Amino acid sequence: MAVNLPTTKKLIGIPGIEIGVAAAGIKYKDRPDVAVFVLTDGAVAGGVFTHNSYRAAPVELAANRLKNGSVRGLVINSGNANAATGDRGLGDAEATCKELADLIGCDENDIVPFSTGVIGEFLPIESFKNGIRSAYLERMQEGWNDAAQAIMTTDTKSKGISKSFRLDESTIKATGIVKGSGMIHPNMATMLAFIGTDVAIVPSVLQRLTVDLSNMSFNRLTVDGDTSTNDSFVVVATGKAKNRLITDVSSSAYTALKEQLAAIARELAVRTVRDAEGATKFITLNVRKGATSEECLRVAYSIAQSPLVKTALFAGDPNWGRFCMAIGNAGVTDMDPYAIDLYLDDVCVARNGMVDADYRETDAAEVMQKEDYKVTVCLGRGMEEETIWTSDLSYEYVRINSEYRS
Amino acid sequence: MAVNLPTTKKLIGIPGIEIGVAAAGIKYKDRPDVAVFVLTDGAVAGGVFTHNSYRAAPVELAANRLKNGSVRGLVINSGNANAATGDRGLGDAEATCKELADLIGCDENDIVPFSTGVIGEFLPIESFKNGIRSAYLERMQEGWNDAAQAIMTTDTKSKGISKSFRLDESTIKATGIVKGSGMIHPNMATMLAFIGTDVAIVPSVLQRLTVDLSNMSFNRLTVDGDTSTNDSFVVVATGKAKNRLITDVSSSAYTALKEQLAAIARELAVRTVRDAEGATKFITLNVRKGATSEECLRVAYSIAQSPLVKTALFAGDPNWGRFCMAIGNAGVTDMDPYAIDLYLDDVCVARNGMVDADYRETDAAEVMQKEDYKVTVCLGRGMEEETIWTSDLSYEYVRINSEYRS
Repeated sequence: MAVNLPTTKKLIGIPGIEIGVAAAGIKYKDRPDVAVFVLTDGAVAGGVFTHNSYRAAPVELAANRLKNGSVRGLVINSGNANAATGDRGLGDAEATCKELADLIGCDENDIVPFSTGVIGEFLPIESFKNGIRSAYLERMQEGWNDAAQAIMTTDTKSKGISKSFRLDESTIKATGIVKGSGMIHPNMATMLAFIGTDVAIVPSVLQRLTVDLSNMSFNRLTVDGDTSTNDSFVVVATGKAKNRLITDVSSSAYTALKEQLAAIARELAVRTVRDAEGATKFITLNVRKGATSEECLRVAYSIAQSPLVKTALFAGDPNWGRFCMAIGNAGVTDMDPYAIDLYLDDVCVARNGMVDADYRETDAAEVMQKEDYKVTVCLGRGMEEETIWTSDLSYEYVRINSEYRS
Repeated sequence: MAVNLPTTKKLIGIPGIEIGVAAAGIKYKDRPDVAVFVLTDGAVAGGVFTHNSYRAAPVELAANRLKNGSVRGLVINSGNANAATGDRGLGDAEATCKELADLIGCDENDIVPFSTGVIGEFLPIESFKNGIRSAYLERMQEGWNDAAQAIMTTDTKSKGISKSFRLDESTIKATGIVKGSGMIHPNMATMLAFIGTDVAIVPSVLQRLTVDLSNMSFNRLTVDGDTSTNDSFVVVATGKAKNRLITDVSSSAYTALKEQLAAIARELAVRTVRDAEGATKFITLNVRKGATSEECLRVAYSIAQSPLVKTALFAGDPNWGRFCMAIGNAGVTDMDPYAIDLYLDDVCVARNGMVDADYRETDAAEVMQKEDYKVTVCLGRGMEEETIWTSDLSYEYVRINSEYRS
């Protein structure tokens, strides 16, 4: 079950990045669950991590190790989140990094770990290490599609996208992959996302770029409002392209690069929502004419996280009352409910806070039969706007999340 | 579907309050959907209302009219919330009050309206008025059970409770009724709750009492985190009992009265959660050893509103990871995850943020098979604690909320 989720095409290899995967039996037998990224000397990385107070052991380590910006390898596993595992979990994460560092022959502090899966269980560390060794042996520049597979948990399809584009006089390549289909919420989600590119950029600017990209993509989506212990988004740049080194966030090259990579990040985010657990609808939610961008987001998330709205989306029921309840719950001070308009695609449901005089429920019902449509809310308070993506709440969501682990 | 929800017994009539109901066909034919309360001259009332920005027309009117504390009648309907209905809705609410005022022969400003049901539709005002007239004719002191029926929407059973108790040298009677089974959240819910008592108390003290009671009951429960446009909790006191007039919140009589009425309010709140839409579990959630009462509530609501926790409750799956994710998401600054303990009834699941050494999943699974159990979280940060009540997220919740209106 997924809403118009495209199948991942052949992803472009990135000079300076080699990827190998292995089936280490971390949770299930005979499915790839470990990926290693081997990065050229001089590669740099930026990262954005979960705001959950329970940060998993690998997240603690990754956030810390990415501070200096240099990185030689990534160790990733699915099937076990290595979260709520205390000192032993931290030691395990370190051990997996050391395993890859020994193979590469680099400092173990230059290896960054990522985990996703069940929380509160210890990693099967020996089989994980075996997996790292086999993955290392299998490594190749064209390994992105395999990696996209290996990081999946409840995802129905692997998710990845590539592009190449001109920057100054150079051709830049970029490939991104993502996993995640539940617990999807701003400030990351049970989501691991990686973008690799051969652009030349200094670490501090890349870090800022990673934050910017996150705010244009992964921080604009919600499935169920839950935020995981492990969410991470990392951009790795190898510097193998011949572009002039990007050293400044106010440069035109930075802006151009951001625009190009934002398209990748946004598409990864959108596909994550399309693959949301049990989703039957993909909703683009646009809140406009707000006084501040922050209040637009509050209204958007209040709608997107309301179980009553989400079940109405599932049912295809144009229930204006539930939208109006959710808008009213956003906690926006002094909101005038009778200044609000609501549209489903082009159908005006409510104008000035009340059902529109020309509104016919059949028109709205027709929109809501579609798998993919837009909800627009005008607050009538200003000039700001925000767009987020969300999904519905279906029987299937309940089924998946009641049966997970069993 | 409801969790150990008792059937309402015969409720005690309150001297000075007469109640009549009628089937006005507001949404469905031939089921009681209008109730009128006719109050003795000198009756006073306190009220607490929804914080949703979209306050329904009757709520605007009720909140305003209760400011002076004197009241001669209540007009209540189910089937239509008269919310998001603008000036016409306000006029309609006024007209229903006027109808009852004319029958009683009092000022229309002393009549207070309440509505619950579908949002965004206009009231069928003529049939409503007919209903008011028939209800008025049928009024009697013993009408509470009928009223508990007439205010139901998706409730599976009517909910009410009575008690009489000594206060100083007098016997006080009190009866409470409530409707509500979804959109249940602090700061009220799609919930209408009424307590009537014959105690003698001044309006300002009664208002404070109503707020206190609300914080001890209805503001401590959540079903799906949604807050409605219509939620109201009103306490009416007729002064017909022979107690010494209560004029002071610091008096021992106030404290004694609060304790007695809190038992009613709490039981009404608990029954509302027991009747939560699609609920199969009733969870008492106790968060203790917090630094502040506010952070205990934040953690409690973060757990109680997490769809992933709620589906795990439904499945009876002792998934420590989901609890830990939800606790970490509460947004409590500087929380040390490795100071946290989690219990399901007496079974210690996690100690110091990790699965307890002696934990056996079968023990926790056994607790979670029960319909009714307690989840205890110790934050290890201080001495405060809070308790809230919640339910699970089941297929049935999705079904009810996808099919409502149809």
